Amino acid sequence: MQQDNSKKGILYGIGIGPGDPDLLTIKAVKILEKADVICVPKSKEQASTALAIVSKYLKDTAVVEPMVFSMSKDIEKRIESRKENARLIEQKLDDGQIVVFLTLGDPMLYSTYSYVLEHLKTGCLIETIPGIYSFSAISSLLSLPLVKGDDKLAVISSWDEGALKMIESADTVVCMKISSFHTDLYAFLKESKDYNFVMITNAGKDTQEVFHSREVLREKVPYFSTAIIQKQKTLQPKILASCQM
Amino acid sequence: MQQDNSKKGILYGIGIGPGDPDLLTIKAVKILEKADVICVPKSKEQASTALAIVSKYLKDTAVVEPMVFSMSKDIEKRIESRKENARLIEQKLDDGQIVVFLTLGDPMLYSTYSYVLEHLKTGCLIETIPGIYSFSAISSLLSLPLVKGDDKLAVISSWDEGALKMIESADTVVCMKISSFHTDLYAFLKESKDYNFVMITNAGKDTQEVFHSREVLREKVPYFSTAIIQKQKTLQPKILASCQM
Repeated sequence: MQQDNSKKGILYGIGIGPGDPDLLTIKAVKILEKADVICVPKSKEQASTALAIVSKYLKDTAVVEPMVFSMSKDIEKRIESRKENARLIEQKLDDGQIVVFLTLGDPMLYSTYSYVLEHLKTGCLIETIPGIYSFSAISSLLSLPLVKGDDKLAVISSWDEGALKMIESADTVVCMKISSFHTDLYAFLKESKDYNFVMITNAGKDTQEVFHSREVLREKVPYFSTAIIQKQKTLQPKILASCQM
Repeated sequence: MQQDNSKKGILYGIGIGPGDPDLLTIKAVKILEKADVICVPKSKEQASTALAIVSKYLKDTAVVEPMVFSMSKDIEKRIESRKENARLIEQKLDDGQIVVFLTLGDPMLYSTYSYVLEHLKTGCLIETIPGIYSFSAISSLLSLPLVKGDDKLAVISSWDEGALKMIESADTVVCMKISSFHTDLYAFLKESKDYNFVMITNAGKDTQEVFHSREVLREKVPYFSTAIIQKQKTLQPKILASCQM
Protein backbone atom coordinates (compact mmCIF):
# COMPACT_ATOMS: atom_id res chain seq x y z
CA MET A 1 0.00 0.00 0.00
CA GLN A 2 1.23 3.45 -0.85
CA GLN A 3 1.96 5.40 2.30
CA ASP A 4 1.33 9.12 2.43
CA ASN A 5 4.51 10.28 4.06
CA SER A 6 3.31 13.84 4.56
CA LYS A 7 0.70 12.61 7.00
CA LYS A 8 2.78 9.89 8.55
CA GLY A 9 2.71 9.84 12.33
CA ILE A 10 5.58 9.27 14.68
CA LEU A 11 5.93 7.16 17.79
CA TYR A 12 7.86 8.57 20.70
CA GLY A 13 8.85 6.15 23.42
CA ILE A 14 9.35 8.39 26.41
CA GLY A 15 11.09 7.57 29.65
CA ILE A 16 9.32 9.58 32.33
CA GLY A 17 11.68 8.82 35.18
CA PRO A 18 10.95 7.35 38.59
CA GLY A 19 8.02 9.42 39.81
CA ASP A 20 8.83 13.09 40.37
CA PRO A 21 7.39 15.11 37.44
CA ASP A 22 10.38 17.46 37.76
CA LEU A 23 12.62 14.59 36.73
CA LEU A 24 11.10 14.63 33.26
CA THR A 25 13.53 15.91 30.64
CA ILE A 26 12.90 19.07 28.64
CA LYS A 27 12.73 16.89 25.56
CA ALA A 28 10.02 14.69 27.06
CA VAL A 29 7.95 17.73 27.98
CA LYS A 30 8.23 19.24 24.49
CA ILE A 31 6.92 16.02 22.98
CA LEU A 32 4.18 15.47 25.55
CA GLU A 33 2.85 18.96 24.82
CA LYS A 34 2.21 18.08 21.18
CA ALA A 35 1.18 14.43 21.55
CA ASP A 36 -2.18 13.30 20.13
CA VAL A 37 -2.27 9.88 21.77
CA ILE A 38 -0.74 8.74 25.05
CA CYS A 39 -0.29 4.98 25.32
CA VAL A 40 0.13 3.72 28.86
CA PRO A 41 0.83 0.10 29.68
CA LYS A 42 -1.95 -0.82 32.06
CA SER A 43 -1.10 -2.80 35.15
CA LYS A 44 -2.17 -2.59 38.74
CA GLU A 45 -0.10 0.46 39.60
CA GLN A 46 1.78 1.65 36.58
CA ALA A 47 -0.86 3.37 34.47
CA SER A 48 -2.06 5.80 37.11
CA THR A 49 1.49 6.56 38.28
CA ALA A 50 2.67 7.30 34.77
CA LEU A 51 -0.31 9.50 33.93
CA ALA A 52 0.07 11.49 37.14
CA ILE A 53 3.65 12.33 36.15
CA VAL A 54 2.80 13.69 32.71
CA SER A 55 -0.78 14.93 33.02
CA LYS A 56 -0.07 18.63 33.36
CA TYR A 57 1.78 18.71 30.06
CA LEU A 58 -0.89 17.08 27.89
CA LYS A 59 -3.09 18.90 25.35
CA ASP A 60 -6.78 19.02 26.23
CA THR A 61 -7.46 16.96 23.14
CA ALA A 62 -4.87 14.29 23.88
CA VAL A 63 -6.37 10.82 24.01
CA VAL A 64 -5.16 8.43 26.69
CA GLU A 65 -4.93 4.84 25.46
CA PRO A 66 -4.45 2.35 28.29
CA MET A 67 -2.85 -0.78 26.85
CA VAL A 68 -3.30 -4.13 28.47
CA PHE A 69 -0.33 -6.47 28.09
CA SER A 70 -0.89 -10.12 28.93
CA MET A 71 1.19 -11.31 31.86
CA SER A 72 0.30 -14.93 31.12
CA LYS A 73 2.90 -17.63 31.77
CA ASP A 74 2.26 -18.70 28.20
CA ILE A 75 4.84 -16.80 26.14
CA GLU A 76 2.68 -17.09 23.04
CA LYS A 77 -0.12 -15.21 24.74
CA ARG A 78 2.27 -12.49 25.85
CA ILE A 79 3.66 -12.14 22.32
CA GLU A 80 0.14 -12.05 20.86
CA SER A 81 -0.80 -9.26 23.21
CA ARG A 82 2.31 -7.25 22.27
CA LYS A 83 1.50 -7.72 18.59
CA GLU A 84 -2.07 -6.49 19.10
CA ASN A 85 -0.85 -3.36 20.82
CA ALA A 86 1.75 -2.81 18.11
CA ARG A 87 -1.05 -3.01 15.50
CA LEU A 88 -3.06 -0.43 17.45
CA ILE A 89 -0.10 1.93 17.47
CA GLU A 90 0.53 1.41 13.75
CA GLN A 91 -3.07 2.37 12.98
CA LYS A 92 -2.64 5.63 14.81
CA LEU A 93 0.65 6.29 13.03
CA ASP A 94 -1.02 5.63 9.69
CA ASP A 95 -3.60 8.27 10.68
CA GLY A 96 -0.73 10.75 10.99
CA GLN A 97 -0.93 11.01 14.75
CA ILE A 98 1.79 11.84 17.21
CA VAL A 99 1.79 8.84 19.51
CA VAL A 100 3.61 8.67 22.81
CA PHE A 101 4.29 5.45 24.70
CA LEU A 102 5.09 6.11 28.35
CA THR A 103 7.61 4.14 30.35
CA LEU A 104 8.30 4.68 34.03
CA GLY A 105 12.06 5.05 34.34
CA ASP A 106 13.69 4.46 30.96
CA PRO A 107 12.29 2.83 27.80
CA MET A 108 15.38 0.70 27.19
CA LEU A 109 15.73 -0.86 30.64
CA TYR A 110 13.29 -3.67 31.50
CA SER A 111 10.41 -2.02 29.69
CA THR A 112 7.27 -3.15 27.93
CA TYR A 113 8.08 -0.62 25.22
CA SER A 114 11.07 -2.65 24.07
CA TYR A 115 8.76 -5.59 23.38
CA VAL A 116 6.39 -3.40 21.39
CA LEU A 117 9.30 -2.17 19.24
CA GLU A 118 9.97 -5.76 18.17
CA HIS A 119 6.55 -6.02 16.59
CA LEU A 120 6.22 -2.70 14.81
CA LYS A 121 6.50 -2.99 11.08
CA THR A 122 9.65 -1.71 9.43
CA GLY A 123 9.31 1.87 8.28
CA CYS A 124 7.45 3.25 11.31
CA LEU A 125 9.01 6.49 12.43
CA ILE A 126 10.08 6.20 16.01
CA GLU A 127 12.19 8.15 18.42
CA THR A 128 13.03 7.05 21.93
CA ILE A 129 13.68 9.56 24.70
CA PRO A 130 15.70 8.30 27.64
CA GLY A 131 14.48 8.78 31.19
CA ILE A 132 16.06 8.81 34.64
CA TYR A 133 16.46 5.26 35.93
CA SER A 134 14.85 4.60 39.29
CA PHE A 135 18.18 3.50 40.75
CA SER A 136 19.88 6.64 39.52
CA ALA A 137 17.30 8.75 41.36
CA ILE A 138 17.70 6.62 44.45
CA SER A 139 21.46 6.98 44.53
CA SER A 140 21.10 10.76 44.26
CA LEU A 141 18.43 10.83 46.93
CA LEU A 142 20.70 8.94 49.32
CA SER A 143 23.89 10.79 48.24
CA LEU A 144 25.22 7.30 47.61
CA PRO A 145 27.68 7.10 44.72
CA LEU A 146 26.99 3.89 42.81
CA VAL A 147 30.44 3.48 41.30
CA LYS A 148 33.72 5.39 41.36
CA GLY A 149 37.06 4.93 39.63
CA ASP A 150 37.39 1.33 38.48
CA ASP A 151 34.28 0.05 40.27
CA LYS A 152 31.92 -2.32 38.53
CA LEU A 153 28.15 -2.10 38.57
CA ALA A 154 25.70 -4.98 38.14
CA VAL A 155 21.99 -4.59 37.56
CA ILE A 156 19.87 -7.69 38.07
CA SER A 157 16.16 -8.36 38.05
CA SER A 158 16.08 -12.02 39.03
CA TRP A 159 18.09 -14.55 41.01
CA ASP A 160 20.13 -17.40 39.55
CA GLU A 161 23.70 -18.70 39.21
CA GLY A 162 24.59 -15.89 36.82
CA ALA A 163 23.33 -13.26 39.23
CA LEU A 164 25.48 -14.74 41.98
CA LYS A 165 28.56 -14.69 39.75
CA MET A 166 27.99 -11.07 38.87
CA ILE A 167 27.53 -10.15 42.52
CA GLU A 168 30.89 -11.75 43.32
CA SER A 169 32.75 -9.45 40.95
CA ALA A 170 30.65 -6.28 41.16
CA ASP A 171 31.31 -3.51 43.65
CA THR A 172 27.70 -2.41 43.56
CA VAL A 173 24.62 -4.40 42.67
CA VAL A 174 21.28 -2.84 41.87
CA CYS A 175 18.42 -5.28 42.46
CA MET A 176 15.34 -4.30 40.49
CA LYS A 177 11.95 -6.04 40.65
CA ILE A 178 13.16 -7.30 44.00
CA SER A 179 9.71 -8.36 45.13
CA SER A 180 10.26 -11.52 43.07
CA PHE A 181 13.53 -12.58 44.74
CA HIS A 182 13.78 -10.85 48.09
CA THR A 183 14.04 -14.14 49.98
CA ASP A 184 16.99 -15.29 47.87
CA LEU A 185 18.76 -12.00 48.42
CA TYR A 186 18.05 -12.22 52.12
CA ALA A 187 19.58 -15.69 52.31
CA PHE A 188 22.65 -14.47 50.42
CA LEU A 189 23.16 -11.42 52.61
CA LYS A 190 22.77 -13.51 55.74
CA GLU A 191 25.89 -15.43 54.71
CA SER A 192 27.73 -12.39 53.32
CA LYS A 193 28.22 -9.85 56.04
CA ASP A 194 30.57 -7.61 54.11
CA TYR A 195 27.84 -5.92 52.12
CA ASN A 196 25.99 -2.77 52.93
CA PHE A 197 22.36 -2.70 52.07
CA VAL A 198 19.69 -0.16 51.35
CA MET A 199 16.22 -0.56 49.90
CA ILE A 200 13.76 2.09 48.81
CA THR A 201 10.10 1.47 48.20
CA ASN A 202 7.87 3.84 46.24
CA ALA A 203 10.74 6.24 45.55
CA GLY A 204 9.60 9.79 44.94
CA LYS A 205 6.04 9.14 46.09
CA ASP A 206 4.35 10.19 49.32
CA THR A 207 4.61 6.60 50.46
CA GLN A 208 8.39 6.45 49.96
CA GLU A 209 10.31 4.51 52.60
CA VAL A 210 14.03 3.84 53.00
CA PHE A 211 15.26 0.72 54.75
CA HIS A 212 18.84 0.26 55.88
CA SER A 213 18.31 -3.13 57.50
CA ARG A 214 18.32 -6.23 55.34
CA GLU A 215 15.73 -7.71 57.68
CA VAL A 216 13.09 -5.96 55.58
CA LEU A 217 13.68 -8.67 52.97
CA ARG A 218 12.20 -11.34 55.22
CA GLU A 219 8.70 -10.13 54.47
CA LYS A 220 6.92 -9.43 51.20
CA VAL A 221 8.21 -6.16 49.70
CA PRO A 222 6.13 -3.70 47.64
CA TYR A 223 6.23 -3.84 43.83
CA PHE A 224 8.08 -0.53 43.45
CA SER A 225 11.12 -1.54 45.49
CA THR A 226 14.77 -1.35 44.54
CA ALA A 227 17.68 -2.55 46.65
CA ILE A 228 21.29 -1.51 46.33
CA ILE A 229 24.04 -3.63 47.86
CA GLN A 230 27.66 -2.56 47.99
CA LYS A 231 30.83 -4.23 49.08
CA GLN A 232 31.86 -2.38 52.18
CA LYS A 233 35.09 -1.07 50.73
CA THR A 234 33.19 1.23 48.43
CA LEU A 235 30.20 2.24 50.47
CA GLN A 236 30.15 5.84 51.61
CA PRO A 237 27.16 5.87 53.89
CA LYS A 238 27.86 9.47 54.88
CA ILE A 239 24.55 11.05 54.10
CA LEU A 240 25.18 14.73 54.45
CA ALA A 241 21.67 16.03 54.49
CA SER A 242 18.29 14.55 53.99
CA CYS A 243 16.66 15.82 50.88
CA GLN A 244 13.46 15.32 48.98
CA MET A 245 13.54 13.76 45.57
CA MET B 1 31.60 39.07 56.11
CA GLN B 2 28.94 38.45 58.72
CA GLN B 3 27.77 34.83 58.96
CA ASP B 4 24.06 34.39 58.99
CA ASN B 5 22.74 30.86 59.27
CA SER B 6 19.38 31.81 57.91
CA LYS B 7 21.28 32.65 54.77
CA LYS B 8 23.13 29.33 54.67
CA GLY B 9 23.88 28.23 51.15
CA ILE B 10 23.14 24.95 49.52
CA LEU B 11 25.10 22.75 47.16
CA TYR B 12 23.29 21.11 44.28
CA GLY B 13 25.13 18.35 42.48
CA ILE B 14 23.45 18.30 39.10
CA GLY B 15 23.63 15.60 36.48
CA ILE B 16 23.34 17.37 33.13
CA GLY B 17 23.05 14.29 30.94
CA PRO B 18 25.15 13.24 27.98
CA GLY B 19 25.26 16.38 25.83
CA ASP B 20 21.87 17.42 24.47
CA PRO B 21 20.60 20.40 26.52
CA ASP B 22 17.05 19.06 26.04
CA LEU B 23 18.03 16.04 28.09
CA LEU B 24 18.34 18.21 31.18
CA THR B 25 15.58 17.55 33.70
CA ILE B 26 13.04 20.20 34.66
CA LYS B 27 14.48 20.05 38.15
CA ALA B 28 18.00 20.77 36.92
CA VAL B 29 16.77 23.77 34.93
CA LYS B 30 14.88 25.22 37.91
CA ILE B 31 18.03 25.07 40.01
CA LEU B 32 20.37 26.35 37.31
CA GLU B 33 18.14 29.40 36.89
CA LYS B 34 18.68 30.44 40.50
CA ALA B 35 22.31 29.35 40.96
CA ASP B 36 24.88 31.90 42.12
CA VAL B 37 27.98 29.82 41.46
CA ILE B 38 28.54 27.11 38.84
CA CYS B 39 31.41 24.76 39.65
CA VAL B 40 32.71 22.85 36.67
CA PRO B 41 35.43 20.23 36.93
CA LYS B 42 38.05 21.42 34.52
CA SER B 43 39.67 18.93 32.21
CA LYS B 44 40.57 18.98 28.56
CA GLU B 45 37.06 18.58 27.24
CA GLN B 46 34.61 18.43 30.09
CA ALA B 47 34.35 22.02 31.26
CA SER B 48 33.39 23.54 27.93
CA THR B 49 30.99 20.70 27.13
CA ALA B 50 29.22 21.02 30.46
CA LEU B 51 28.93 24.80 30.25
CA ALA B 52 27.56 24.66 26.72
CA ILE B 53 24.76 22.40 27.95
CA VAL B 54 23.62 24.68 30.76
CA SER B 55 24.62 28.18 29.61
CA LYS B 56 21.24 29.37 28.42
CA TYR B 57 19.68 28.79 31.82
CA LEU B 58 22.19 30.72 33.93
CA LYS B 59 21.56 34.11 35.54
CA ASP B 60 23.62 36.98 34.14
CA THR B 61 25.25 37.31 37.54
CA ALA B 62 26.11 33.64 37.89
CA VAL B 63 29.81 33.06 38.47
CA VAL B 64 31.47 30.15 36.73
CA GLU B 65 34.11 28.48 38.88
CA PRO B 66 36.28 26.08 36.90
CA MET B 67 37.75 23.55 39.34
CA VAL B 68 40.99 21.81 38.61
CA PHE B 69 41.22 18.28 40.01
CA SER B 70 44.64 16.68 40.09
CA MET B 71 44.90 13.60 37.89
CA SER B 72 48.27 12.69 39.43
CA LYS B 73 49.13 9.03 39.89
CA ASP B 74 49.86 9.96 43.50
CA ILE B 75 46.58 9.34 45.32
CA GLU B 76 47.57 11.78 48.06
CA LYS B 77 47.81 14.58 45.53
CA ARG B 78 44.42 13.69 44.11
CA ILE B 79 42.86 13.66 47.57
CA GLU B 80 44.52 16.98 48.45
CA SER B 81 43.07 18.53 45.34
CA ARG B 82 39.59 17.24 46.15
CA LYS B 83 39.87 18.65 49.66
CA GLU B 84 40.91 22.06 48.35
CA ASN B 85 37.92 22.20 46.06
CA ALA B 86 35.63 21.05 48.88
CA ARG B 87 36.98 23.96 51.02
CA LEU B 88 36.25 26.39 48.19
CA ILE B 89 32.68 25.14 47.97
CA GLU B 90 32.23 25.35 51.74
CA GLN B 91 33.32 29.00 51.70
CA LYS B 92 30.66 29.80 49.16
CA LEU B 93 28.04 27.91 51.14
CA ASP B 94 29.03 29.85 54.26
CA ASP B 95 28.45 33.02 52.25
CA GLY B 96 24.87 31.86 51.70
CA GLN B 97 25.33 31.16 48.03
CA ILE B 98 23.48 28.68 45.87
CA VAL B 99 26.26 26.55 44.47
CA VAL B 100 25.87 24.09 41.63
CA PHE B 101 28.40 21.40 40.78
CA LEU B 102 27.95 20.13 37.23
CA THR B 103 28.47 16.53 36.20
CA LEU B 104 28.17 15.27 32.66
CA GLY B 105 25.83 12.30 32.80
CA ASP B 106 24.93 11.55 36.40
CA PRO B 107 26.58 12.70 39.65
CA MET B 108 26.55 9.23 41.24
CA LEU B 109 28.13 7.25 38.40
CA TYR B 110 31.90 7.60 37.97
CA SER B 111 31.88 11.28 38.86
CA THR B 112 34.28 13.75 40.38
CA TYR B 113 31.38 15.09 42.42
CA SER B 114 31.22 11.90 44.49
CA TYR B 115 34.82 12.50 45.59
CA VAL B 116 34.04 16.08 46.56
CA LEU B 117 31.12 14.88 48.70
CA GLU B 118 33.53 12.80 50.79
CA HIS B 119 35.41 15.88 51.88
CA LEU B 120 32.61 18.31 52.62
CA LYS B 121 32.16 18.95 56.31
CA THR B 122 29.12 17.44 57.98
CA GLY B 123 26.20 19.82 58.08
CA CYS B 124 26.54 21.25 54.59
CA LEU B 125 23.19 21.32 52.89
CA ILE B 126 23.34 19.34 49.70
CA GLU B 127 20.93 17.94 47.20
CA THR B 128 21.86 15.76 44.26
CA ILE B 129 19.85 15.78 41.05
CA PRO B 130 20.18 12.70 38.86
CA GLY B 131 20.98 13.01 35.17
CA ILE B 132 20.57 10.83 32.10
CA TYR B 133 23.45 8.36 31.84
CA SER B 134 25.37 8.46 28.59
CA PHE B 135 24.64 4.79 27.95
CA SER B 136 20.94 5.31 28.56
CA ALA B 137 20.90 8.01 25.88
CA ILE B 138 22.88 5.80 23.54
CA SER B 139 20.51 2.86 23.91
CA SER B 140 17.57 5.15 23.12
CA LEU B 141 19.38 6.67 20.18
CA LEU B 142 19.99 3.23 18.71
CA SER B 143 16.58 1.81 19.70
CA LEU B 144 18.61 -0.87 21.42
CA PRO B 145 17.01 -2.25 24.59
CA LEU B 146 19.76 -2.79 27.15
CA VAL B 147 17.98 -5.43 29.19
CA LYS B 148 14.62 -7.18 29.11
CA GLY B 149 12.89 -9.71 31.35
CA ASP B 150 15.51 -11.49 33.43
CA ASP B 151 18.53 -10.06 31.61
CA LYS B 152 21.53 -8.85 33.56
CA LEU B 153 23.45 -5.66 32.92
CA ALA B 154 27.09 -4.99 33.74
CA VAL B 155 28.74 -1.59 33.66
CA ILE B 156 32.53 -1.55 33.67
CA SER B 157 35.12 1.18 33.34
CA SER B 158 38.32 -0.87 33.35
CA TRP B 159 39.56 -4.31 32.41
CA ASP B 160 40.57 -7.05 34.84
CA GLU B 161 39.61 -10.55 36.00
CA GLY B 162 36.49 -9.23 37.68
CA ALA B 163 35.36 -7.50 34.52
CA LEU B 164 35.78 -10.74 32.58
CA LYS B 165 33.73 -12.66 35.14
CA MET B 166 30.95 -10.14 34.94
CA ILE B 167 30.96 -10.24 31.16
CA GLU B 168 30.54 -14.03 31.29
CA SER B 169 27.28 -13.77 33.23
CA ALA B 170 25.87 -10.50 31.91
CA ASP B 171 23.58 -10.30 28.90
CA THR B 172 24.64 -6.74 28.18
CA VAL B 173 27.86 -4.99 29.11
CA VAL B 174 28.32 -1.24 28.98
CA CYS B 175 31.96 -0.27 28.66
CA MET B 176 32.58 3.27 29.85
CA LYS B 177 35.90 5.14 29.65
CA ILE B 178 36.75 2.62 26.98
CA SER B 179 39.68 4.63 25.67
CA SER B 180 41.69 3.12 28.53
CA PHE B 181 40.99 -0.55 27.69
CA HIS B 182 39.92 -0.75 24.06
CA THR B 183 42.73 -3.12 23.14
CA ASP B 184 41.75 -5.58 25.90
CA LEU B 185 38.15 -5.52 24.76
CA TYR B 186 39.27 -6.01 21.18
CA ALA B 187 41.29 -9.06 22.13
CA PHE B 188 38.33 -10.49 24.05
CA LEU B 189 35.86 -9.93 21.23
CA LYS B 190 38.23 -11.48 18.74
CA GLU B 191 37.94 -14.75 20.66
CA SER B 192 34.25 -14.37 21.45
CA LYS B 193 32.25 -14.21 18.27
CA ASP B 194 28.84 -14.50 19.88
CA TYR B 195 28.68 -10.89 20.95
CA ASN B 196 27.23 -7.98 19.09
CA PHE B 197 29.05 -4.72 19.37
CA VAL B 198 28.33 -1.06 19.01
CA MET B 199 30.37 1.97 20.01
CA ILE B 200 29.38 5.61 20.01
CA THR B 201 31.82 8.47 20.22
CA ASN B 202 30.83 12.02 21.17
CA ALA B 203 27.18 11.05 21.60
CA GLY B 204 24.80 13.94 21.09
CA LYS B 205 27.46 16.24 19.66
CA ASP B 206 27.99 17.32 16.07
CA THR B 207 30.96 14.99 15.95
CA GLN B 208 28.93 11.94 17.00
CA GLU B 209 29.85 8.70 15.27
CA VAL B 210 28.39 5.20 15.59
CA PHE B 211 30.54 2.13 14.91
CA HIS B 212 29.11 -1.35 14.46
CA SER B 213 32.42 -3.04 13.71
CA ARG B 214 34.64 -4.05 16.59
CA GLU B 215 37.62 -3.27 14.37
CA VAL B 216 37.34 0.33 15.54
CA LEU B 217 38.87 -0.84 18.83
CA ARG B 218 42.19 -1.56 17.18
CA GLU B 219 43.02 2.13 17.06
CA LYS B 220 42.95 4.79 19.75
CA VAL B 221 39.36 5.78 20.52
CA PRO B 222 38.18 9.27 21.53
CA TYR B 223 37.69 10.12 25.22
CA PHE B 224 33.90 10.36 25.00
CA SER B 225 33.34 6.83 23.75
CA THR B 226 31.05 4.16 25.12
CA ALA B 227 30.74 0.61 23.84
CA ILE B 228 27.85 -1.76 24.38
CA ILE B 229 28.29 -5.47 23.87
CA GLN B 230 25.44 -7.95 23.98
CA LYS B 231 25.21 -11.70 23.83
CA GLN B 232 23.57 -12.43 20.53
CA LYS B 233 20.52 -14.06 22.05
CA THR B 234 19.33 -10.73 23.36
CA LEU B 235 20.46 -8.29 20.71
CA GLN B 236 17.67 -6.77 18.68
CA PRO B 237 19.63 -4.87 16.06
CA LYS B 238 16.41 -3.89 14.30
CA ILE B 239 16.86 -0.16 14.16
CA LEU B 240 13.55 1.10 12.94
CA ALA B 241 14.43 4.63 12.05
CA SER B 242 17.43 6.82 12.44
CA CYS B 243 16.81 9.60 14.85
CA GLN B 244 18.70 12.50 16.32
CA MET B 245 19.43 12.53 20.03
